[in-house]
Amino acid sequence: MTAAANFSIALIHYPVYDKNHDIVATAVTNLDVHDIARSARTYGLSRYYIVTPVEEQRRLVEKIRTHWLEGWGSTYNPKRKLALELLKTEDTLQAAVAEVEERTGKRPKLVVTGASGRPNSVTFGELKALMDADPDQPFMLLLGTGWGLTEQVFKASDYVLEPISGGGDYNHLSVRSAAAIMLDRLFGR
Amino acid sequence: MTAAANFSIALIHYPVYDKNHDIVATAVTNLDVHDIARSARTYGLSRYYIVTPVEEQRRLVEKIRTHWLEGWGSTYNPKRKLALELLKTEDTLQAAVAEVEERTGKRPKLVVTGASGRPNSVTFGELKALMDADPDQPFMLLLGTGWGLTEQVFKASDYVLEPISGGGDYNHLSVRSAAAIMLDRLFGR
Repeated sequence: MTAAANFSIALIHYPVYDKNHDIVATAVTNLDVHDIARSARTYGLSRYYIVTPVEEQRRLVEKIRTHWLEGWGSTYNPKRKLALELLKTEDTLQAAVAEVEERTGKRPKLVVTGASGRPNSVTFGELKALMDADPDQPFMLLLGTGWGLTEQVFKASDYVLEPISGGGDYNHLSVRSAAAIMLDRLFGR
Repeated sequence: MTAAANFSIALIHYPVYDKNHDIVATAVTNLDVHDIARSARTYGLSRYYIVTPVEEQRRLVEKIRTHWLEGWGSTYNPKRKLALELLKTEDTLQAAVAEVEERTGKRPKLVVTGASGRPNSVTFGELKALMDADPDQPFMLLLGTGWGLTEQVFKASDYVLEPISGGGDYNHLSVRSAAAIMLDRLFGR
């Protein structure tokens, strides 16, 4: 099994911070569904989880998914179908973790992105080496929406991945762009 | 001057192909404006051009830009302001090229992305070497919308950059994700 085939990505809509550092559930953005699914398929990932506790939001994502998998969209644009086949909605991060465990028999190592200098922080190169060293070990990359993942999620994670640097001090990529760059750094040729 | 500071990116809405290989003008997507501006700012680019011959569409982009630069958005989220300062709308690719020439005194070398094997195709490494060899030479990366840039744009370009490969045969990234990955490969640390 390649490292990518044992790797999944989860877009977390709760618990995340809002602008005032309050813990909230953010709304799902349509292009997050498509863009990250397409990136996940391009780099050969096993799954893309969209995590939100809001049932109506999960239904909305399922509606998008069904449209492109079974509806008119599946014949209009089969490339979208291939991407959205990776998509799974879950109400909690724990449920996404359980789904990996059920599929692979192993609890995934959780990776978050954040400032370096934390005790369990790793570079992209170090994370690649960890994955190559144990191809049977699933990994899951957690992406925050809003103003970022809460401290609680950071504490529950196994690794903190170094932030993407563009060389300057501006580092405010969209979550869609950040996901694409991270997957390219980990799995791109 | 760094290579990035002499590098610009242009999102082309005309001339591009539609699904049936007809040449059309596509509509501007709101998140293309924001995501690519944020990526351009992260990697230190000089400009981000949105090219469309449709006056109403240029007005729409200007409205978004003004909202975040001068309106309520400028105080709500100053990071967006920094990104959208790079944005300029133009009616044609020629006008964007002329703007670079006016600013820098040199016509930019035009780079498109496409399948390898064309006579003027370069890898990411080769393009980096070309830029480093002549820091005074501006470069402009052209991104197509719809079903891609027309043959006419390819013929008018100086270099064809190798496509992004994720290792498999699926290669259908969104233009936002592709732009982010290309800038990271060229300028990321």
